[in-house]
Amino acid sequence: MSPSYDLQQQLSFITELDKLKAVKRKALIKCDDNRYENSAEHSWHIAMAAQVLHPYAEEPVNLARVTQMLLIHDIVEIDAGDTFAFAEEAGLAAQEAKEEAAANRIFGLLPKQQFGYLKSLFREFEECSSADGRFAKAIDRILPLIQNMQNDGGSWAQHKVKRSAVLARNQYLEGLAPALWEFVQSQIDQATENGWLLNE
Amino acid sequence: MSPSYDLQQQLSFITELDKLKAVKRKALIKCDDNRYENSAEHSWHIAMAAQVLHPYAEEPVNLARVTQMLLIHDIVEIDAGDTFAFAEEAGLAAQEAKEEAAANRIFGLLPKQQFGYLKSLFREFEECSSADGRFAKAIDRILPLIQNMQNDGGSWAQHKVKRSAVLARNQYLEGLAPALWEFVQSQIDQATENGWLLNE
Ligand SMILES: [Ca+2]
Repeated sequence: MSPSYDLQQQLSFITELDKLKAVKRKALIKCDDNRYENSAEHSWHIAMAAQVLHPYAEEPVNLARVTQMLLIHDIVEIDAGDTFAFAEEAGLAAQEAKEEAAANRIFGLLPKQQFGYLKSLFREFEECSSADGRFAKAIDRILPLIQNMQNDGGSWAQHKVKRSAVLARNQYLEGLAPALWEFVQSQIDQATENGWLLNE
Repeated sequence: MSPSYDLQQQLSFITELDKLKAVKRKALIKCDDNRYENSAEHSWHIAMAAQVLHPYAEEPVNLARVTQMLLIHDIVEIDAGDTFAFAEEAGLAAQEAKEEAAANRIFGLLPKQQFGYLKSLFREFEECSSADGRFAKAIDRILPLIQNMQNDGGSWAQHKVKRSAVLARNQYLEGLAPALWEFVQSQIDQATENGWLLNE
C-alpha cells in the first residue's frame, strides 16, 4: 500500500530539510575543529536557549510557539542562504524577497493547512508582530553574542563589527527582557575592552 | 553588573550544548559531501518531523512536550556518545548508566527547577512512560528509516542490519500511529527487495 498523498508531501518536506545541514553560518564550532556552524544545528541550539531563557520574558510568552518559530525560522536559507547579521542594508532587502520565495516553495511542499500554519508563523517571526515573535527574535540574536564571547570575539572580531551595531541589534531586549538586556550590555562592554568590537 | 546566579548557570548550560555539534552519528549527510550527521542537527530534524507528523498519533499527544523531549533526548551524548540503534544488548545496558550520569551532570548545570523539569522529561522519553514519550520515541525511530531509504540503505546496508530488527524497532508504531506503521512496513519491504536489509 502506498502512503496517502498528505504523508507523501510530509515526507518530501522532511527529506528536503536535510539540506539545511549544508548551509554554513559565520560562527565557528570550537569543539569540532573550528569548522563553520550550520543552520540546522544552530536552529536546535536557539530552540534550546529559549527553553531555559523564557522565564526572563517581561510579558509572558507561549514557549511552544516561540520554539516552533525558532525551529523553522532558518529553513528558508535552504534556497536563500545565510545572511551575516551585519551585512549592508541593500543586500538585506534583496535577501528578504529571496526568503519569501523560499518560504513558499519549501513550506509549500506540505499539505495546505500545515503550509498555512508554518508560513504565518514564519511571517510573525520575521515581522516581530507579536510578543512571541519578538521574544523568538531576541533569542536568535542573543545566542551569537554568547558564542562570540566564548570564542575570542568570533565573527565580530573577524568582520570588524562596531559596538554600536551590536547594541542596536540587541536593544529591543530592553523592554522584552530587562535582565537579559543588562547582561548583553555588560558583555558588549567587555568585548569592547577586549578589542573584539570596534569602539564606535 | 554581573548576571544573576541563575543566569550564569543557564549560560553555562547553553554554552555546554555546543558540544553536541561534535557528536557524530552513523547517518551520512548526502548533500554535504557525505559527512557524518551530528546529534545537534539530528535533534533539530526530528523536532521538525514531529511538527508535521503529530496528526498521525492515534491517541492525541501534546506536541509542545513531544518537541521538548526530542530537543533534549540526545544531550546526554555529550558525555556518553551515540549508540548505534542495532548495537549488542550488553553494550546498551552500560550505555544507559552512562546516560543517566550524563543527564545529572549536564541538566545539573541549570537552576534546580529547570534541572528537575528536563531530567523528568528525559526519563519520560527514555522509559516511554506516557503517550507523549512513546510518540517522541517513535518519531526518533522513524527518521533514520526515512534517511536510509533516501540514501541507498545508508547505515542499514553498511552494518548488515536484519529486516526483523528494523521491524521490531518500529513495531510499536502499530498502536501509536497506524498510518505510519503501514508506511514503515512498506519501506522495510522495499529495502529488503533492494538488498539493503538482510532478509532474516
Ligand atoms: Ca536519537
